Parts: sequence; C-alpha cells; structure tokens
Amino acid sequence: MAWNETKVTLTGRVCTDVRLWHPEDDERTVAAFTVAAHERKFDKATGTWVRGRDLYMRVKCFRRLAATVAQTFVKGDPVVVTGKLHTSKWEKDGERHSEIEMEAAAIGPDLTQCKVVMLRDERSGVPAEAVAA
Amino acid sequence: MAWNETKVTLTGRVCTDVRLWHPEDDERTVAAFTVAAHERKFDKATGTWVRGRDLYMRVKCFRRLAATVAQTFVKGDPVVVTGKLHTSKWEKDGERHSEIEMEAAAIGPDLTQCKVVMLRDERSGVPAEAVAA
Amino acid sequence: MAWNETKVTLTGRVCTDVRLWHPEDDERTVAAFTVAAHERKFDKATGTWVRGRDLYMRVKCFRRLAATVAQTFVKGDPVVVTGKLHTSKWEKDGERHSEIEMEAAAIGPDLTQCKVVMLRDERSGVPAEAVAA
Amino acid sequence: MAWNETKVTLTGRVCTDVRLWHPEDDERTVAAFTVAAHERKFDKATGTWVRGRDLYMRVKCFRRLAATVAQTFVKGDPVVVTGKLHTSKWEKDGERHSEIEMEAAAIGPDLTQCKVVMLRDERSGVPAEAVAA
Repeated sequence: MAWNETKVTLTGRVCTDVRLWHPEDDERTVAAFTVAAHERKFDKATGTWVRGRDLYMRVKCFRRLAATVAQTFVKGDPVVVTGKLHTSKWEKDGERHSEIEMEAAAIGPDLTQCKVVMLRDERSGVPAEAVAA
Repeated sequence: MAWNETKVTLTGRVCTDVRLWHPEDDERTVAAFTVAAHERKFDKATGTWVRGRDLYMRVKCFRRLAATVAQTFVKGDPVVVTGKLHTSKWEKDGERHSEIEMEAAAIGPDLTQCKVVMLRDERSGVPAEAVAA
Repeated sequence: MAWNETKVTLTGRVCTDVRLWHPEDDERTVAAFTVAAHERKFDKATGTWVRGRDLYMRVKCFRRLAATVAQTFVKGDPVVVTGKLHTSKWEKDGERHSEIEMEAAAIGPDLTQCKVVMLRDERSGVPAEAVAA
Repeated sequence: MAWNETKVTLTGRVCTDVRLWHPEDDERTVAAFTVAAHERKFDKATGTWVRGRDLYMRVKCFRRLAATVAQTFVKGDPVVVTGKLHTSKWEKDGERHSEIEMEAAAIGPDLTQCKVVMLRDERSGVPAEAVAA
C-alpha cells in the first residue's frame, strides 16, 4: 500500500546472529540481522573468477515472518531476501547517524547453497501455514 | 559473466509440476515450472484489499539447483525466485512462437507462507551443501 | 497502492513506433511500444564480448507520461524503463493468447547512449513540469 | 562481467550538486551525487496519500556517462537510476566509516516529472552518440 518503494533482492549469507524482539512502541515482533552479498568478477588477465565488491545490508522483518526467520536461520546460512530500502536515522550521544537498511517482504533459504525439508500438511501437499491460515 | 542482464524477483506459488530433464544437446540438468504471482490492490471505495493483476512466469533452473528444486517443491509451494529474463523463441508446426521466460539464479521457499527445516552439517551449523563443496 | 507487485527495470532501445491512443472504456491515455534489451557475454575462448540472449518487452504507460513519451521517443532511442510485470490475456478469432507485458512507472532516455536538453523553468532550475504542478 | 551483483533502481530527485572529478589513481572520470526517493503511503484513516519513508542514496557513475550526467543534471532534477549496490569503506581521523552506495549502469531524466529534447543526428533519428560511436 505504498507508491515509489525502492525494491531490492539480495542473495548472500546471514553474517550476524538473528535478533528477535518486541519494541515497546510497536505491536509488531521484529527480527533483525545482516546479510553479506559478495560479487564475483572475471579477471581477464588470469582467466579466473576473483572476489569483487562486498555489500553488507541490515535487514529487518516483522510479525510472523520475524518469528519464522528467528526459528530458521543461524549465522552462516545462505538466503534470498527481497524487500525495500530506506534510510534509517537515529541519535546517539548527541551525534546524528544514518544508515540504509532493508525491510524484507519475503525471505527464503537459497537452494543453490543448501537443502531444506518443507513442512507441509500430510494429506494436502500444501505448506502447513497455508493450511492453518 | 554478462552485462545488461534484466533482473527480476518473483514472490508467488509454484502452479505447475516441476519437470526435470537432461537435454541431449546440453550437459546441464534442467528443471522447469511456472510461478503465479498475484498482486493485491487496496480498493478505496470499500476499504478492503482486492485481487489485482496476475503474472504467470515460466522459470528454468540448471545443474545442482535444478535437482534440488525438483526434490524440494511441489505444486502449490510458496517461493521467492530471483533471476533474469529473456525472450525464448521456437517453431512448432511451421508457426513461430515466442515467450518471455526467466532463468533463476537463486530460489527459496517463501518463509512468509511456510516453514522449513534446514539441512545442516551437525557439527558446524553450516548448510550441508557448503560443507560438502 | 498495491502489494506484491513484480518490479523490473529495462535498459535497451525502443524497437517499434510509439503508439498513442485513448481507449473507449478507460479515461486514461495510453502509449505502447516495445523495448529490446540485449545481454552481452564475455567469451572466455576468444577473450571478447559477444551477444547473449535478447529480451523483447511490450511496455505500456498511461496519462501524462504516455503523452510525454509519445512526444519524446522514436524507434531506435535508448531508454531506461522501470515498472511492473503482469500477464495480459485476450481472445482473437476464437483463440486464447497471453503475453507478459510491463506497465511503466517511470521512463527516461538512457544517458549512457544519448544526450538531452532538460526543459526547465528559467528562473528556478526546477523542471518545467514540477513548476507547473 | 560480474556475478551476484545486487541490482537496484531508484526513482527520485538529485538532492545535491553533481560533482565531477578525475581520481589520481584511476583513469576513469567520476561523477557523484545523492538521489532522494520518497515513498508515498495510503492512509486508510483519512483516505489520503501521505509521505512514507525516505531513501537517500549516494550514486557514482564513470567515464562518458559521468561527463554527460554532469552536463545534464542540476540539484532538483527528477531521475531514474539503475545500477548496483556495494558497501564503501574508508578511514578518517583514525575512525572507520562505511556506507552503502550505488554504481549507476544507466541514468535518465524521469519523464513522469519533466520534459526533454533528445539530441539526435538530423538525418537518422538515431541518438547522436549512437551515430558517433
């Protein structure tokens, strides 16, 4: 329900713990963690792939997704995250800080880098959450 | 290793079977399926969310990801897919056809809609595939 | 004012005429054209860049943007287009057809490939449209 | 010529001067500026659109695009920018800093917000740069 959102998708690894908390001024559960995405470049001189630039992005998610993410991922896990960017601003010790961060709309383990077992209702082949909803 | 790729990310459900095959003229295993992504719109008149436009996208993935996807997903499963678009062209019965399709770079179950168990190596907390690689 | 839109950005060339019309059943002016986006790949064997896969995307835009686009672009012009995808369906001669197309949210000439003169209000340095609005 | 780039597209306004320079340790001309992208949200309570979160992104572009951008845009101009993200790190006065920034692959004035005159070769209808190349 928004217009001119700046969408982005990351493919990388969770590189911090996943922190889960309930803000006092917000009814929504929050989960936060950082994703590291590493670019790979082809080096013509040597004919091999080398490490390119890195991106470290703070990711937040909310409500039921937050709880599921905190249950599912640990540091090092490979993820696909899609969502939108904004600049977060805060003050600490009288100094102003700002940082670009991401609010995730959907997250999954990256199946190019890991395997999973889907939790589905036995009879239907439909994911457990869809059945429960 | 390409320039000017058209990247896209889908959040939707697998709406066909996942077909896995080994093309004769290509050493790579292929998996193909269709993802349905449904837009939701806010209807001012009624103050409720209503169904918007639909997108049906043919998705292909290759090699190890193809095998993992075919083992993991069935029709109805919620996914996040990121990759690139191109126009596929073919001839059938003397008629030319073309269709926009997607080659996936990464795929995961969408944890806003389902739950999973990660398969990791016992000792490390690192996903099984990362340890094996 | 929508949720789960599938966003995409194309960098390519207008490869058809830009058609402008006023649908009978819709108050909005429409402009439609096709954009061709060509991927380039690095060929390790020869150490040169070669042509990769092509994408041809039907693009529609509406209202004031439609009029501006029809005034501005001709076949061959380089553009950056950002918007969202959906599957368009129609019937012709009793046969069903469907095609993925794009609704543009913003379009500009691609300044890696061309130059432009901005039309601004003389006194303000702000674009003419912003002043008029 | 890279793999796992994190692509993003901004639609917003240039909110700083465009600075153009020639780094000593790099043969490429650089242009840098900041883009402000403002999200709009629909407020159900009042039935009106209100301002959502803001994104301020540092954008760099290189070579010929840098020169064209510096010639074309001033503070306040509306733009569409597509490119990739990375985390830039530097040290100042013994303190470490980092910031997410964007390297632009293509930029254009946003024709939803302004008008332009295309500079094309007289005879061909093809943009001047394409003819010269």
